[in-house]
Amino acid sequence: MSETRQYSVLFEPVRIGPVTARNRFFQVPHCNGMGHIRPQAEAAMRAVKAEGGWAVVSNQETEIHPTSDLSPFAENRLWDARDIPALRLMTDAVHDKGSLAAIELAHNGNHAQNLMTRAPVLAPSDMSLDYPYPKQARAMDKTDIRNFRRWHRDAAIRSRDAGFDIVYVYAGHNMTLPQHFLLPHMNDRTDEYGGSLENRLRLTRELLEETHDAVGATCAVAFRFAVDEMLGTDGMQAAEEGRAIVEMLAELPDLWDVNVCDWSNDSLTTRFQPQDGYQNDYISFVKSMTTKPVVAVGRLTSPDMMASMVKKGVVDFIGAARPSIADPFLPQKIEQDRIDEIRECIGCNICVMADSVGAPIRCTQNPTMGEEWRRGWHPEIIAPKEREEDALVIGAGPAGLECAMQLARRGYQVTLAEAGSEPGGRVLRESALPGLGAWARVKDHRLHDLRQRANVQIYTDSRLGAEDVLELGIPNVFIATGSHWRADGIGRNTLRNRPVMDAAATVLTPDDIMAGQMPPDGPVVVYDDDHAYIAGVIAEKLAAAGHPVIFVTPESLVSSFTALTLEQHRVQTRLLELGVDIRCNHSLAALDSARMQVACTFTGRTQDIACSSAVLVTERLRETALFDALQGRDLTTLELIGDAAGPALIADAVYAGHMAARNFERAADAVDRDWFRREIIDLTPEIPHA
Amino acid sequence: MSETRQYSVLFEPVRIGPVTARNRFFQVPHCNGMGHIRPQAEAAMRAVKAEGGWAVVSNQETEIHPTSDLSPFAENRLWDARDIPALRLMTDAVHDKGSLAAIELAHNGNHAQNLMTRAPVLAPSDMSLDYPYPKQARAMDKTDIRNFRRWHRDAAIRSRDAGFDIVYVYAGHNMTLPQHFLLPHMNDRTDEYGGSLENRLRLTRELLEETHDAVGATCAVAFRFAVDEMLGTDGMQAAEEGRAIVEMLAELPDLWDVNVCDWSNDSLTTRFQPQDGYQNDYISFVKSMTTKPVVAVGRLTSPDMMASMVKKGVVDFIGAARPSIADPFLPQKIEQDRIDEIRECIGCNICVMADSVGAPIRCTQNPTMGEEWRRGWHPEIIAPKEREEDALVIGAGPAGLECAMQLARRGYQVTLAEAGSEPGGRVLRESALPGLGAWARVKDHRLHDLRQRANVQIYTDSRLGAEDVLELGIPNVFIATGSHWRADGIGRNTLRNRPVMDAAATVLTPDDIMAGQMPPDGPVVVYDDDHAYIAGVIAEKLAAAGHPVIFVTPESLVSSFTALTLEQHRVQTRLLELGVDIRCNHSLAALDSARMQVACTFTGRTQDIACSSAVLVTERLRETALFDALQGRDLTTLELIGDAAGPALIADAVYAGHMAARNFERAADAVDRDWFRREIIDLTPEIPHA
Repeated sequence: MSETRQYSVLFEPVRIGPVTARNRFFQVPHCNGMGHIRPQAEAAMRAVKAEGGWAVVSNQETEIHPTSDLSPFAENRLWDARDIPALRLMTDAVHDKGSLAAIELAHNGNHAQNLMTRAPVLAPSDMSLDYPYPKQARAMDKTDIRNFRRWHRDAAIRSRDAGFDIVYVYAGHNMTLPQHFLLPHMNDRTDEYGGSLENRLRLTRELLEETHDAVGATCAVAFRFAVDEMLGTDGMQAAEEGRAIVEMLAELPDLWDVNVCDWSNDSLTTRFQPQDGYQNDYISFVKSMTTKPVVAVGRLTSPDMMASMVKKGVVDFIGAARPSIADPFLPQKIEQDRIDEIRECIGCNICVMADSVGAPIRCTQNPTMGEEWRRGWHPEIIAPKEREEDALVIGAGPAGLECAMQLARRGYQVTLAEAGSEPGGRVLRESALPGLGAWARVKDHRLHDLRQRANVQIYTDSRLGAEDVLELGIPNVFIATGSHWRADGIGRNTLRNRPVMDAAATVLTPDDIMAGQMPPDGPVVVYDDDHAYIAGVIAEKLAAAGHPVIFVTPESLVSSFTALTLEQHRVQTRLLELGVDIRCNHSLAALDSARMQVACTFTGRTQDIACSSAVLVTERLRETALFDALQGRDLTTLELIGDAAGPALIADAVYAGHMAARNFERAADAVDRDWFRREIIDLTPEIPHA
Repeated sequence: MSETRQYSVLFEPVRIGPVTARNRFFQVPHCNGMGHIRPQAEAAMRAVKAEGGWAVVSNQETEIHPTSDLSPFAENRLWDARDIPALRLMTDAVHDKGSLAAIELAHNGNHAQNLMTRAPVLAPSDMSLDYPYPKQARAMDKTDIRNFRRWHRDAAIRSRDAGFDIVYVYAGHNMTLPQHFLLPHMNDRTDEYGGSLENRLRLTRELLEETHDAVGATCAVAFRFAVDEMLGTDGMQAAEEGRAIVEMLAELPDLWDVNVCDWSNDSLTTRFQPQDGYQNDYISFVKSMTTKPVVAVGRLTSPDMMASMVKKGVVDFIGAARPSIADPFLPQKIEQDRIDEIRECIGCNICVMADSVGAPIRCTQNPTMGEEWRRGWHPEIIAPKEREEDALVIGAGPAGLECAMQLARRGYQVTLAEAGSEPGGRVLRESALPGLGAWARVKDHRLHDLRQRANVQIYTDSRLGAEDVLELGIPNVFIATGSHWRADGIGRNTLRNRPVMDAAATVLTPDDIMAGQMPPDGPVVVYDDDHAYIAGVIAEKLAAAGHPVIFVTPESLVSSFTALTLEQHRVQTRLLELGVDIRCNHSLAALDSARMQVACTFTGRTQDIACSSAVLVTERLRETALFDALQGRDLTTLELIGDAAGPALIADAVYAGHMAARNFERAADAVDRDWFRREIIDLTPEIPHA
């Protein structure tokens, strides 16, 4: 291994209590939508991180008791010994690759709804749940607190028995009981667990001490702590109580894992925070207050920044969740001086989205993420080609680029033909919109790879017809021609009552805006029946350019899907601050040159909105003309992939391109079987009720 | 068994194709939040229905293929032979109790997001998903249709192999492909599967024929069909195409299971449809067009109506989902002339709510629902008392009534003391609000039971202090003193920035309204930080009484929780139609005698709303004074239950009361173990990837 000198500091081993990490790369706990529902998938995914060089690989928040039941979300679970074998899959797999395994024990207090267990919800004080669900938490009495400490201690022992090397006490993201006790607005207790900071910190201190007592001889005790709530004086601040807490507990944990909260502040998207290392200003004080190693995050993907942070004494470990998802082999690539091969996180939070809907993790940049067990995909390894020699990929958007790259890695002679003057497809277009610049990494990474390969030819300005394709004589053709936005207002809310569109109306689509067209003077309605990010981004662009913008949507929120990427609050706030007039719960009824008629989704009552133009963001139409024309012609392979097969997220297009390349030359029945692979319930009868 | 003559028609056996149902009680397919994630729980729950006399017990929609992946929702799954053993648990259990087992095969088309499988989404035509999720379905080509038919046929064969007696083809609730092909707004195909009704019906016809071919020798083929979309001319109508379809397929299925759609119309709550049998006008034509048996639903709980529907030739089977949940022993109780023991469904849709959040089913009336496997609870059987003789239950709300009733059934001498002049607690109060009248059944059922028992004494107007309790000399005390609504505006959205409340402001709470107090003249703000039903109901009451009402909530929808009970659309529509001024996304900042200051949840910008009073619906305070005063005193048992322990739904209070009665005199470790019972993943390694 040829290690670049400037980054050698990143590959020094670091002692954490009784264990030693082989380098400074630390995959902090992160959710993945697998958890106790898909433990084999989780083990395989975490193992790939270890293989890629992360010296510490953590799991995700791990329920320690039925009073912290996060169902239906797929987190980890360690209620009792029955859960150990599932977690052991992960620790064995991580150890096999030479890394340490960490577990994040969690009691979620009023952030748990206990929907499955129906158990009481616990909190420092009586209060509502952290969800719009009509159930209230009760203030823990002394027995509850003793029980909780016992549950935590017992879970620590089970963690050790499951093979974990590092056991977390977790007070972060506004999601767990120890932090709830710390925060004055959640803790109005008058006993020794409330009032002064010392009192509010008592529970955390007890947990740290008791975890040490229980397992400290073999396991390191990590403390994950949110030093700042990012609410100014309305919340905990790094310069105030955050700092005081670090000072008070300084040497008690074996490791400090520090960040900011809530989750939307910790996991900021590039749309709202383009800079990596954005937490450094908040956490850099910590190292000065403890001799114990410190890990922190901030979407760190630059080896220079990483090395600098260690050298400057900001951290001992480079923490990562999202960068380790986008590239599980990031540490190895730095170590092997293959920095330009790093698949850099684009900060889109599609990974978070998957967890938020209870589905296995996925990643826009890394299509193998979440498929390590189910499909046996490895981010760095792909099977070499078999009998076929040549492949033609038509369309250099996210699906086509990924497909071409993986086919090239398999050893085929790859021809990639793009109709436009520049490769990138929708990624090229969308990354020019406000806030989405980092998304260009999807194309940049792939183009960089493709351009270095001798077995790849890329042609731009090459719109191919069916006869052109056949003339090329390449028998294997992958069609990734994408989709375009429809301009007729038809979408999920207008299927029954199709909008009446006057020919004189000025209608634009996202494609027009991305092509540089701007609306005429006068008010413009952005009508969103898509509910993902694009309409919100376009409204922002138009408002920032000085257009009077009215945002109309049948949903009750702007860009409702972005709640799943932790962005919705910021999206709607930004539009409001730009003066956008937001009209929710209305669908498009008619449009003419002077007004849009909209109908209330509840009452059906219509109203007119004066406007000189409208941007309609409803649905996309697939570009299948070339595919259709080639069907039945003399080709060995003809496959439609990406948005042309089914418009979806960029992540889905990359995934489709990857899958097509992986499955090329595989037996059809083997390909089909992959879809069916899932984890199922153990039907072994349990002991009967007592 | 002494069977009442007038209902004997309900207990006639009925032939369905090759199988025979022992009577006319038919539990139609219904979701239960168990499914493939909790198959043992599902089997136990369905078995109790069979035991209670339902001659046919159906499962719930059953995914037939990875392209119909409803994850994270817990429906049934039958993708391949691996799923058979889990379903076999149910068929064996149902057969053991002498009933037939039915399976509802489903392909959900664009109602499936395929979040776990990431498979393409299929539909008759290109269109958006039936969710605000940025993924589109693709029009099925001929290969897709052939594949789908093969998947369905194979699933039918697997159903037979799993022991099912009846196999459904499912075209209902706007949720499945066969229905999607039927509906013109979803099907713009120009081939033999689109256009004319005959063409749109082709797929359904093929499925019915092919299911017959595959398994018809041993299994009946049922067809679940929504005859009316309840949209007038905007949708399918029973008098138009609905009728034509029944005519065209008349003798093809072995059984017609007919209803209306969408789900919110099929499963109407009593709040919006107090009458049972509300679907009869739509489905009664069916029997005249087929010789095959017909089953229909409509929250049927009246034996008289049931017998009349059969005698009048409206149906052959009494279909039920919710009534069979509220009382799994409904058929047996009719057969045994114990009609007054029926636990009548209150039509609150808390059962639906549980499924909607991916949690096991629960029921306001039947606290054992969903706990048959986990806790071993049986709706009609409870263990007799052990050593203790007497119990005192304080508070005759839902928790106290249920606790007292179950303790009485166990054989204890039960004293029930209620401070108010009438038993019922919050059920009494809430059932007097608009639309909630049927909820009074929660108290009526229990009071009827209690009043017939010699071992029960009920005292009203009996507010007890600690000394009163001790003087009674009853050593086992259950405190169900409930909760009351706080009046200071504090709730989940105001914890950090507590509202500034002027002493001169006129503040009411739900308790005041329920006690008969009405606001003074002038505009009244109903401020909702609870998000369940109560604020919406109060706004309706005040508006209907002529008050100018402004509804303010930090949520983006009125009564957002009611989306889970299929009511939200109706709630907000009703308020709008009553002229209520709805201001979403605002939280309470301050209140004085003339105005409420509210702050935008996005920008923080404040605005004033002129009002002469406000009803604050934020959070409840537990009534624990008596419990606190009794702690440490000389009692064998002292337990706080229901809203006094943790304010929640009425269903939760009933559940808590039931649990306290069940667990009384059980060993503490056995009680504790129940919380941990859950189904876990099979870790047996699978065959490796091909």
